[in-house]
Amino acid sequence: MSSVYWDGRRFVGKEEIRISPDDRGYYFGDGVYEVFRVYGGRLYEPKAHFDRLVRTADGLRLKLPLSVEAIEENLTRLIAHNRLSEGTVYMQITRGAAPRSHPFPQEAEPVVLAYCNEVPRPAASMEAGIKAITVPDIRWLRCDYKTLNLLPNVLAKQEALDAGAQDAILHRDGTVTECSASNIMIVKDGAVVTHPADNWILHGVTRGVVLRLARASEIETIERAFTVEELLNADEAFITGTTVEVTPVVAVDGQAIDNGSPGPVTRRLQREFAATIG
Amino acid sequence: MSSVYWDGRRFVGKEEIRISPDDRGYYFGDGVYEVFRVYGGRLYEPKAHFDRLVRTADGLRLKLPLSVEAIEENLTRLIAHNRLSEGTVYMQITRGAAPRSHPFPQEAEPVVLAYCNEVPRPAASMEAGIKAITVPDIRWLRCDYKTLNLLPNVLAKQEALDAGAQDAILHRDGTVTECSASNIMIVKDGAVVTHPADNWILHGVTRGVVLRLARASEIETIERAFTVEELLNADEAFITGTTVEVTPVVAVDGQAIDNGSPGPVTRRLQREFAATIG
Repeated sequence: MSSVYWDGRRFVGKEEIRISPDDRGYYFGDGVYEVFRVYGGRLYEPKAHFDRLVRTADGLRLKLPLSVEAIEENLTRLIAHNRLSEGTVYMQITRGAAPRSHPFPQEAEPVVLAYCNEVPRPAASMEAGIKAITVPDIRWLRCDYKTLNLLPNVLAKQEALDAGAQDAILHRDGTVTECSASNIMIVKDGAVVTHPADNWILHGVTRGVVLRLARASEIETIERAFTVEELLNADEAFITGTTVEVTPVVAVDGQAIDNGSPGPVTRRLQREFAATIG
Repeated sequence: MSSVYWDGRRFVGKEEIRISPDDRGYYFGDGVYEVFRVYGGRLYEPKAHFDRLVRTADGLRLKLPLSVEAIEENLTRLIAHNRLSEGTVYMQITRGAAPRSHPFPQEAEPVVLAYCNEVPRPAASMEAGIKAITVPDIRWLRCDYKTLNLLPNVLAKQEALDAGAQDAILHRDGTVTECSASNIMIVKDGAVVTHPADNWILHGVTRGVVLRLARASEIETIERAFTVEELLNADEAFITGTTVEVTPVVAVDGQAIDNGSPGPVTRRLQREFAATIG
C-alpha cells in the first residue's frame, strides 16, 4: 500500500487520515468510487473513468468537491509522490459527515480518500484462465452507478472462493449480467457477445476498450443479454476489468468452456489490449 | 447527540472514535446495524432487535465480537452514561479494517460503534399523519438484512422530501413493499394488511409489535402483498417503525386516503402501542 494519501486537500501519510464516525460513507455507503489502472506511471483511460465518476455522482446528486481536471491533476501528483509505476489508484468520494439521517445533509463537505497500490499485471491468470461459478444477481437496479453499496458483490465473490472458483458470474433469472467486479463476454461463432450497458451492469472502462479493439480488429461485437446456457455452450468466455484486463474463463460451474483452454479470439484481444498499454 | 460512545471495548468521547479508512464499512457498507428505541431509560423490545441483528450477521457471515448478552449489557451502560431517558441507541458493527479486497479478510476484528440520541416521541406527525409518495423499489433482494447498504433508501427519502412529502412508499412493479425506513400497513374492511416478512422487506420490530397488538385486540391481520392501487383505495394507512411508532399516512401521491384523516383502527393501534411503552 502506498504511504502517501490524498484527502482532497493535502497529501498526507495514511496515519493522518481521519474518518468521522458520522461520514455518510460509513452509515449508508453514500459515496462514489473509481479504481484507476496505472501503467508506466500514468493513469490509463482517465477520461472514461472520470466520465463514469461524474455520471454516478450526478445520479446520486453528490456534488464533486473539485473539478475533474483538478482531481486528475492531484491523482497524477499522488502517483508521483508514491513513485508508482504499475498499479492502481483507488479513490472514493462520500457525501461527507453529518449526524445520521437519511436525507441529504444541508451542510456537509464531500470527503475524498485516494491512495495507490502496486499491482502487477495478472500474468498467470491471463495465461491460464480462471474458473467461475454462477450466482444469482441480487443487487439493486442501478448497477451502472459505481457506489460504495457493494455488499452483494462481496458476498458473491466470497461464495466463489468458497466453491474453489476465482470469481462469481451473476445472473438475473438465468440472464448473465456481469461478475462480482468485472464484466463478462462470450465468443460464439466468431462474434463477441456482452450484456448491453444499461442499469443492470457497471459500464466497465475495460469493457469499452475491448469492444473498441474488437471492432477495430473486425471482430463482430453484439451487445445483448445472453443466458447461462449460452455461456456454458460458448466457444470462449472472458472477463474484462481494470485489474483483470482480459482474463479467460475456462470453466463455469465445474463445466469446461469449449475445450477448457483460452480461445483464439480471447488471445487476440489480450494482445490488442496489451498493445494499448504502451 | 450523546457525548459518550461505546466502541465495543470502552466508553469514550466521540472525539476519541477513530474509524480506519480501511474499515470495510467504509469501502463496501460491509456491516450490520440496529436502531433501538429507549423509553424511560430502557431498551424497548431488545430481544426482537438482537434476534434481527444475529440473523443479519449470520446472513453476512459476520461474527459478532461479543455475545448478545454482553452487547445488551453494554448498551444499557451506554444509556446510563448518557443519562438518556427518551431516545434511541444507534449501533453498527462492521467486518473490520483490512486492505481493500472484496473477499472476507482473514484477519479483521469487527468494529463496533454505538451512541445515543435524545429523540422525543413524534407527537405531531402521529396526530396529523404524513403525506407520502410512491417510488419504485430498486433495492437489492435481501431487504430483510439490516445492513449499511442504504443508498436506495437515502435516495427514496430525499425524493419524497423534494416532492413535499414526508416519506417514500416503495413498490416493485406496483406491489407495495415498505417505506424508506419503516413498514407500511393498510386497513381495508376492518382488517390490517401488510407485506409478508420475506426478503422484500425489513422485518420491523414495531411491525411485529403492532401485528401482535392487533391480534390481541381481535383486529384481523393479513400478511400478503398489496398493490399501490389497493393502498390508494384503502380505508386507512399507517407506517410503523422504531422512531415513527404508528404514524398515519393521510395522503399518497397527492391523493387523500379515505377522507384524509387518520382512521379508527390506526387510532386504536396507536393507543395500544402507547400502552406497551409503560
